[in-house]
Parts: sequence; structure tokens; C-alpha cells
Amino acid sequence: MRAIYFDGTKASFETDRAIPEAGIDESLIKVDLAALCNTDREVMRGYSPGFAGVMGHEFVGTVMRSSDTELEGKRVVGEINLSCFSDDCLYCATGRDHHCESRTTLGIVDKDGCFADYITLPTRLVHTIPDDMVDEVALFTEPLAAAIRIIEQTPLVVDLPVALVGDGRLAYMIAQVVALTHASLTVYGKDRDKLEMFAPFARTILVDQIDWDGEHDTYEVVIDATGNPESLASSIALTRSEGFLIMKSTYADKAQIDMSEVVVRELTIRGSRCGPFAPALDLLERGLITLPPVEIFLPQDFEKAFASQAFKVALDF
Amino acid sequence: MRAIYFDGTKASFETDRAIPEAGIDESLIKVDLAALCNTDREVMRGYSPGFAGVMGHEFVGTVMRSSDTELEGKRVVGEINLSCFSDDCLYCATGRDHHCESRTTLGIVDKDGCFADYITLPTRLVHTIPDDMVDEVALFTEPLAAAIRIIEQTPLVVDLPVALVGDGRLAYMIAQVVALTHASLTVYGKDRDKLEMFAPFARTILVDQIDWDGEHDTYEVVIDATGNPESLASSIALTRSEGFLIMKSTYADKAQIDMSEVVVRELTIRGSRCGPFAPALDLLERGLITLPPVEIFLPQDFEKAFASQAFKVALDF
Repeated sequence: MRAIYFDGTKASFETDRAIPEAGIDESLIKVDLAALCNTDREVMRGYSPGFAGVMGHEFVGTVMRSSDTELEGKRVVGEINLSCFSDDCLYCATGRDHHCESRTTLGIVDKDGCFADYITLPTRLVHTIPDDMVDEVALFTEPLAAAIRIIEQTPLVVDLPVALVGDGRLAYMIAQVVALTHASLTVYGKDRDKLEMFAPFARTILVDQIDWDGEHDTYEVVIDATGNPESLASSIALTRSEGFLIMKSTYADKAQIDMSEVVVRELTIRGSRCGPFAPALDLLERGLITLPPVEIFLPQDFEKAFASQAFKVALDF
Repeated sequence: MRAIYFDGTKASFETDRAIPEAGIDESLIKVDLAALCNTDREVMRGYSPGFAGVMGHEFVGTVMRSSDTELEGKRVVGEINLSCFSDDCLYCATGRDHHCESRTTLGIVDKDGCFADYITLPTRLVHTIPDDMVDEVALFTEPLAAAIRIIEQTPLVVDLPVALVGDGRLAYMIAQVVALTHASLTVYGKDRDKLEMFAPFARTILVDQIDWDGEHDTYEVVIDATGNPESLASSIALTRSEGFLIMKSTYADKAQIDMSEVVVRELTIRGSRCGPFAPALDLLERGLITLPPVEIFLPQDFEKAFASQAFKVALDF
């Protein structure tokens, strides 16, 4: 089969990889459309040391064979954390299976990902999608779930002053999830064109236009989704004392932090990662999320796809 | 009057400073005993840029004159944050007066401290102490309140695995407050003698004895009270995914942090600072806190006091 394979140093397009075999309690899925996200770019930059394998973790596909035969032939999306789900596992036994220490992660840690014709997944991670939902919509389930994770961890309330720092694709999902809570949302971005997309549901501020360094203590909750450690100091400054800074950014480099400011101002910094698929599929099915167009490449053109500046990029397998 | 004065660069003992005058709604207090804390040492190292004035923020004293005449002659302790308490102030109007942006802080920010014969304080910050409570006990009100702040922000429950990293004086207060919740407490320290003091109410681990780097995902709540940025990586490692890392340390240097670990493991890092005096005085009055002996110096010997390795050091004014 075809696949984009990362050997630990560089990625290449291969055409002769073996089709994986579904084990017990697993499903074999034909990938229809697979999306790129910044995490894939970070994987290429060494974010996941030691990873070698097929890349990719966002996809829409069709189940070919499954431990649950009713799923066969169904169009599906899939969760990315392959946890042990054992009663002996601290995290799996306490509702934190996303943090299972023996888990692998699709296309990121020790598990071949979805930039390929076929993948296998534990059947419990497979979610069917409605018949009338097109691939280009279902593709947003995983990032939308990650956005929903924020409000699963940290309650937002009507009119609460919330800032979102970042104008990328994940930020676009986050903004819409936050807007549905009727919190008072302001989005900070560097790209005028991207920022315009947020205008229907948030106040937008072009970072170049304002005295960024001068703004402080403005929001009860600040969500940093820039993917860049350089934004951390500004995000901290924007957060009110005793407020929450939600970190959605992963990056290969360490960040510098003024921990005394965190202590003196009693800030809470919370990491936020993968979220629940069911509410994400519900929002998509009900048409409550505005989605950007998807720029689609052939797998063999993956380098162009990675270099694309388009808001959302996918590979058509 | 006598005072330990910091000119922005160095501290000196002065004998001819003017006695301050109590303004409207203020009290003039004769300082009886004033304690040193690491924050005072940090002030000397530039933790509070721009501060020049009388140092010190922990004290026991006697009210000489007060806007509340019933306080005159009473022995008291005092809170350290002089906030505006205006309805127009975001923080004062929302129960966060400790974070008032126009506040000054006793002996730390723009307000003469208690290493002096006399201080003034807003009367609302003055708390009377029981007649039978000796100065050497009342002196612990402020650090004990800071310890209580942890459980005011972050609920602990019976048997919850909690680690305290640090074996200093504040840690000693924190350990006892945590132990009263019946959380399951482990204290990590570098000093065998200090660590022994914690043994009556916690499991203790000498950091040199263990493979510190190898321990990880062990505690739901980790409290870092080392006063040292070098402990941060270990404290993060000890914290379980989706767990809480409570930061009690302030230090002049910035810290390096692996923010990707915070995000991927969905850690919550929470700054914790000043706490409520009333429950602290209650615990002290009921004899529920074991206190270390206080080593007492004369004010003119403040340099010896600052250099002392004793667990608790005070100046006798």
C-alpha cells in the first residue's frame, strides 16, 4: 500500500508497505481522506523523539473488517490514543485513559498513522459518522474534539472575558466552541486574512496593531494556541490574577517562564490536549461549526501539502 | 527609631529613622518580634525591583494608636497586602484584593516593613491574638496562612497522594496543614536534619537517597516549596497526568519549562501565595501546629540573622 513514512529523520512516500492486519478487538480501515496538522510538522522536527513509522492521525475512512461486524462498510473517524484499558492501569482505571502510560498514539508514538491506504485501530476507538456527513466535514472531528476538551476541563460562563491567542486551524475550532458558551471572546492573531475568519463570532485583534506588551490582566481565561513558545509571556500578561491560562500548544523547544509571576499572581496554567469525539460529531452533524475549505493533495505530493499555507490541508488516499 | 533599611542595593541598620504616622483608618504598631523569611532574602537579591525601604513583613506587635480605639494596647499580627478595597477595583470588587493592582506590600513593594520599632498598617489588616499566645507562636500566623492558601485554592481529600518538595520553614507549615486533611503526604528534602522534623506527620524521602529522576507520575498533587527553579522539572515529573502542581516558590530567575509535557500530560500548574489569617490563628490557638524553636537576634545583628541556618529566625525589637 501507499504511505508517508517517517524514518526518524525524514519523511518519504512509499508504495510497497504491507497492509496492516487487524488483531483481536481491532478494525481494519481504508483511509479515504487524511488531514495534516501542526503536530505532524512538529513530529518532523523531533517533537516525538524516537518515533519512526507512518505519519498522520486525523482521518476519515471506511471499515473493511472489524471485531464488531456491524461496523463493516461504515464510514468512520477514529480516536488517536491507544490505551491499555486495563483495570490495573492507574490512568485507565480512573477515567484518564488518554494518559495511559503504555498507550501508543496514532502517527505520533509507536503506532503507524493514517497517511496510508489502510490503518488498524482498536474498535472501541472507532466512531461512525452520519451518512450525509461528507469527508471534508468529518475530518474536523479530532481537532474539534481537542477544542471541546478546553470546556470539559475548565468551565466557561456567559460573558466571561476570554482571550484566544493564535489564529491557526485549531484556534478556529476553539473560537467556535468558546463562542457557543457565550463567553466574551477576543482573538489575537498575526495574520490579517486568517483573523477575518474569526470575526463572525469574536472580537479580533491584529497583534501588530496593538501595544501587545502593554495589555495585561485583561481576561479571566486565556487560551494559548499559537504553537510557539514566544507567545507565553504575552499570554501570561493577558491573564488576570487568579485566572486560567490554557495551553494548547506543543512545541519541541522548552519555554522560559517567569514562575514568580505565576506564584505572586496565583495564575493557573493548564495543559489541554485530546478531547471527546461524541460532542464533536454532534456539533458537526448539527451544522453549528463553520468549517474552512480543505485543500487536497495526492499522497505522492505530500511535500507540497506540508509546505502549503492553506488553512486546512489533506491527503486523498 | 531603629530599622533595617534596604536602599535598593544593600541593607543597613539605622537608628534615626522617623516613627511613621498612622493615617485615616490606620493603626500605629510597636513591633515586638519580626521574623525573617526567604522572601526577605529574595528582596535583597532583586526579587522586588525598585524596592527601597524598611524590610520585613512577618511580625507580632502591640497597637499604640488606631482608628479602632478598642485595638489600642492589644497584641496583634498583620496582613501584608495593602489593597485599595475600592468598588471600582477589578480585584478588590471580586474578592481578590490580594491582587489589587494599586496595592503595596509590607517590606516588599513600596511600603515600609516591620524590621523597625514601629510600623503603620490599615486597621482592617490588623488581627488581635489571644492573650495567652506567646510572640514566638503568633509569629507563624503569616506563613501558616500562606500554607492554608493551598487548600483554599485546591481541595485535598482523604488518602489523596500528595508530595511536598522542599524541607524549609514554609514547607514545614504546609506539611502540617496538608496532614490535617488526611491526604497521604510524602515530603522530599535535601537536609536530613530538617527532614526529620517532618517524620511525625509525613513519609519523608531524602532526595540524595533516591533515583529522583526515575520517579514520575506518583502524586495527584505536588507542592513545590523549594524556592529554587531547579526543582521544577522533578516536581513536574512527580505529578500525575491531569494532576496539580502547586507552586509556592518565588525566585528572581526565570525557570525553564517543558511546556509540551504540561500540555500532553494535561498538568495544572497553580501559583499560590498569601492566605487567610483567621484559620491560621485558629490552628495556632488550638495547638494543632507543631512549631520549631525561634532563634532570636538583636536588630543590629541582622546580618548574622540573615546568615543563620536556623529553621526560624527573628529580630527582637
